[in-house]
Amino acid sequence: MPKTFQQRLSEAIEKKNSRVCVGLDPRYEQLPVELRQKIEEAAGGKNALAVAESYRLFCRGVIEAVAPYAVTVKPQLAFFEAAGPAALAALTDIIAFARSRELLVIADAKRGDIGSTAEAYAAAYLAEDSPWRCDALTANPYLGGDSVRPLLKTAAANGNGVYLLVRTSNPGAIDLQDVTLADETLLWQKTAGLVSDWAEEFPGAVGAVLGATYPAELVDGRAIMGELPLLLPGYGAQGATAADIAPALTGATVVNSSRGIIFAQPEGEESWMDAIARAARLMRDDLNPVPSRN
Amino acid sequence: MPKTFQQRLSEAIEKKNSRVCVGLDPRYEQLPVELRQKIEEAAGGKNALAVAESYRLFCRGVIEAVAPYAVTVKPQLAFFEAAGPAALAALTDIIAFARSRELLVIADAKRGDIGSTAEAYAAAYLAEDSPWRCDALTANPYLGGDSVRPLLKTAAANGNGVYLLVRTSNPGAIDLQDVTLADETLLWQKTAGLVSDWAEEFPGAVGAVLGATYPAELVDGRAIMGELPLLLPGYGAQGATAADIAPALTGATVVNSSRGIIFAQPEGEESWMDAIARAARLMRDDLNPVPSRN
Repeated sequence: MPKTFQQRLSEAIEKKNSRVCVGLDPRYEQLPVELRQKIEEAAGGKNALAVAESYRLFCRGVIEAVAPYAVTVKPQLAFFEAAGPAALAALTDIIAFARSRELLVIADAKRGDIGSTAEAYAAAYLAEDSPWRCDALTANPYLGGDSVRPLLKTAAANGNGVYLLVRTSNPGAIDLQDVTLADETLLWQKTAGLVSDWAEEFPGAVGAVLGATYPAELVDGRAIMGELPLLLPGYGAQGATAADIAPALTGATVVNSSRGIIFAQPEGEESWMDAIARAARLMRDDLNPVPSRN
Repeated sequence: MPKTFQQRLSEAIEKKNSRVCVGLDPRYEQLPVELRQKIEEAAGGKNALAVAESYRLFCRGVIEAVAPYAVTVKPQLAFFEAAGPAALAALTDIIAFARSRELLVIADAKRGDIGSTAEAYAAAYLAEDSPWRCDALTANPYLGGDSVRPLLKTAAANGNGVYLLVRTSNPGAIDLQDVTLADETLLWQKTAGLVSDWAEEFPGAVGAVLGATYPAELVDGRAIMGELPLLLPGYGAQGATAADIAPALTGATVVNSSRGIIFAQPEGEESWMDAIARAARLMRDDLNPVPSRN
């Protein structure tokens, strides 16, 4: 048996003494000016290939800079899709580079579909021969168990994982996730219970996305889901502090920051990569000490 | 003001006297043997480029065959993602070809994310200069209004639409969508109410996916959402008949069939395109007469 995703992630957290997940959310206009200029000169202006190449080089730079301080990187598929097929081709290179630097890669794609379509998503991201071969994929549970199991089956067979959305950190999460059910619990707690059931079927392959903006929900979520690996968004730019999320910093939990790291402003003589490395190191230290696992 | 998606779709339905949506779900092993052989000979075997080219030629053939009988085609992104970046590049050509044949294109991607990430998905599929410039996108509402509005804003500005998942046709839909709420309604009915609210904010840009396997739910869904454009999956291979879905065949409703059309078996001397054209025509006639709009 290969190690499970949860085992691999736990070992990486202990080895690096870090819970940092760096979100790879490239936006062309926010990339370092010197990087864009060099590429536009070579490409004869801003075009789809120039944007793709800038994403490739920028994300490689981010990966190089954060590798000592982060355990995972999380490419947000939407930003690559917005830049077209060439950017998605660049993403295959970015993912392979991150894995060569011993970073676990979480594809933040929030996919969710049924049956053979779910199998196709698994084939795209979670198998040994996937074009975008990641260590984990984020997924949306609204379609229920038969949308989630095909992903988990492929993930488990390859030592990979699936993070299910449980309670997200955006204001609109109240629209459905916080709806009160007949038994007086909230919908997201029902989702957490299902996630916990799926984790029993596929041990070590299931994680959960739990918004870091509501500390009480982290405690409730932990109570329902036990020590499942959590992916906490909302740190930094979205406002959550280390103290807010302290209750959930056990087991294989990782905490994501995107803009706060990848668009960190250089100070003094720093290069853009220096600034990114510093931001990742500060976040790692802010989240430490990493509590020992139960 | 450009015409809205709902207006454009209604006009196409009346013009063609058809409610047929053809799902473009290519799977390499199920493509016509003669098509695969020709491409493998040219490519020196089955590789990523050969698969992408076969998807491109197959889907163009499907589009050519169904154009007289269908109003929309619905590429399922998962199957293109499973085949890698070259297949996604082929999809840009497939979409443009469908639009040139006056078919509306619904990207079945079931995306759902928040804020600037949702804007990136809108930029990928729903804008004038999108790399995959479609007429509509399917989306998952679990993250709530602030995940949906950025999609709808871009869609509405370009005369395009967004279909929100409300009640899907898979067995696992009971896990969350059929959960009973404190007010004794079901979660999917709550979702339908939200979809109806969003449609008031963005008139003509909002549609709903409503599983065609439960006739009573189509009646309930119509009662909550009125004459919003419905996308009904589940016809044919998934088991729903024209009689099952008759109550929802008003307004701008379209009915999807994927495998039942694109993998229709040739009879006698038919080519694979002849078989597909016949299947699309039979489905169109099975759903007729199209009831007049309210």
